[in-house]
Amino acid sequence: MKKEISKLLDVRKSIRVLDATMRDGGLVNNFEFSDEFVKALYKANLAAGVDYMEFGYRADKALFNESDFGKWKFASDDDIRKVVGDNDTPLKIAVMADVGRTNYEQDIRPKSESPVDLIRVATYLHQIPGAVTMIEDAKDKGYEVSVNIMAISTAQREDIEAALDIIGRSPVDVIYIVDSYGSVYPEQMARICDCYLEFGAKYGKEIGIHAHDNMRLAFANTIEAIGDGVNFADATYSGMGRGAGNCQMELLLGFLKNPKYKEYYAFEMAQKYMQPMKEAGVTWGYDLQYLATGILNQHPRTAIAFTGEKRKDYADFYKEMLLLD
Amino acid sequence: MKKEISKLLDVRKSIRVLDATMRDGGLVNNFEFSDEFVKALYKANLAAGVDYMEFGYRADKALFNESDFGKWKFASDDDIRKVVGDNDTPLKIAVMADVGRTNYEQDIRPKSESPVDLIRVATYLHQIPGAVTMIEDAKDKGYEVSVNIMAISTAQREDIEAALDIIGRSPVDVIYIVDSYGSVYPEQMARICDCYLEFGAKYGKEIGIHAHDNMRLAFANTIEAIGDGVNFADATYSGMGRGAGNCQMELLLGFLKNPKYKEYYAFEMAQKYMQPMKEAGVTWGYDLQYLATGILNQHPRTAIAFTGEKRKDYADFYKEMLLLD
Repeated sequence: MKKEISKLLDVRKSIRVLDATMRDGGLVNNFEFSDEFVKALYKANLAAGVDYMEFGYRADKALFNESDFGKWKFASDDDIRKVVGDNDTPLKIAVMADVGRTNYEQDIRPKSESPVDLIRVATYLHQIPGAVTMIEDAKDKGYEVSVNIMAISTAQREDIEAALDIIGRSPVDVIYIVDSYGSVYPEQMARICDCYLEFGAKYGKEIGIHAHDNMRLAFANTIEAIGDGVNFADATYSGMGRGAGNCQMELLLGFLKNPKYKEYYAFEMAQKYMQPMKEAGVTWGYDLQYLATGILNQHPRTAIAFTGEKRKDYADFYKEMLLLD
Repeated sequence: MKKEISKLLDVRKSIRVLDATMRDGGLVNNFEFSDEFVKALYKANLAAGVDYMEFGYRADKALFNESDFGKWKFASDDDIRKVVGDNDTPLKIAVMADVGRTNYEQDIRPKSESPVDLIRVATYLHQIPGAVTMIEDAKDKGYEVSVNIMAISTAQREDIEAALDIIGRSPVDVIYIVDSYGSVYPEQMARICDCYLEFGAKYGKEIGIHAHDNMRLAFANTIEAIGDGVNFADATYSGMGRGAGNCQMELLLGFLKNPKYKEYYAFEMAQKYMQPMKEAGVTWGYDLQYLATGILNQHPRTAIAFTGEKRKDYADFYKEMLLLD
């Protein structure tokens, strides 16, 4: 069905915007954000009317060496509190917790002891039972909980439906569509949204969208999903995120018509912090190596390696990909 | 109505891809393409299966000084012939002819004397009678003829419909939807396509799409239009075009499933010629100043000036735009 003509001008009070700059962007700079940057980002999100700010991963320090990463790989309650204090603001705080990489029993304290509002469980399809356990744990501790089911573009529809049925019966609040490989076209996104929204309606869950820009469609897919009825949208300033990056906050806030969202402050954050970071050599965003893995529906790790080696032989890279057994 | 699930995998033999690199990209580098570049572009288009190659504008030398521009501002039959000979290939040749800026009586010779196949008339809404005269002239001389109605995002729907009705009764072959300001979202594009396709069906005309990337939606709007039934699509290598640039050939050919289109050769052209041109300082493509004019549905000339001055104060620029009377 054609989308309602009113939707583009409407306020849609049910929309929630989540800033994932420190988490997905942290994958680009090894989570080494300066304290000044983090404070500026917090202020920008407040000024721009963003609903949630994700501070990073809460990774298991038994699995990852603290000395190998910036502190936002572990995003502790203490470190978050140093930035937000008691966070007496409308901006909610989120951290991501990977199934199998989080010591959730110990590192996720009861909500009453934490500045965090939302625990974002990230899972692959084959880890769904682990995700449900972590969802239940976080919910029991008093948090809002969302789940990102990653890499669905290589999954079978039946497996996704089975996962949504299991997750639907969990106490999770929001289920995210995640286009990890940036290989979904808007026509396909519309069908994926229909599927998720059907389970969302059945089980009373909100649906979210987290897109990547390998085919320069992160923003297009995000607004396709919003037009289809998805209410939670992830974005990052200047699209900072792994590989080709994410839906850009500047674009998303410019699109949303609710006057609580003020894209001017996203422009300001981009000008004062994101642009200088790029000029200092931190590299992310659409480029042909990411298009190659996007077209071929592959994990971007080969393209990220290509970027790391500062290669520019895009066509040769694409040929390598095409000729792989 | 939801697009047919088959469309994404289908061949759609009616699709035609036009390479506008030398014309829209010429607006970036003052039409100063080297002979080597032009020959490489011609070969790339042939190898990639592109259907039309636009060589530039055929501008009136009485209005523009030849010494002020590269030769592709005037794209003479002779200069084109030096590249393509008799063009005994499936790749058709196009030039753009602006209403009011073309000495078409003199400079457009009969098709039998010219290597050009397609005359692309470009018009604003208030120039429609001039466009019809040029369409009839080119058709009488034996050419395929298309028309680009520019800057429709600031026009009234009734005026567009009146123009389509007049143009529909002309002998033009293809009517292009042109998002000159890059300020149309896919939802809106779907409605614009419906309108153009209705007149196309009534008068037996093909519909085309020419998009700009101010809101990073040039490719998304192009495939939206193709999904809606539009058959002619403009693209440029690496998106080279005025301001934020155009739909990227690499993306479009990667999307189309007809095996005649070979995106590998677009990657190769991008690697060998477009990337080095960017590194040499020729500047185009999505950036926040273009997003600002896109959001505000304005001509990109202020953003182009901002780029020319190498300003980086995006937020200040956006504020200037917002506060203009």
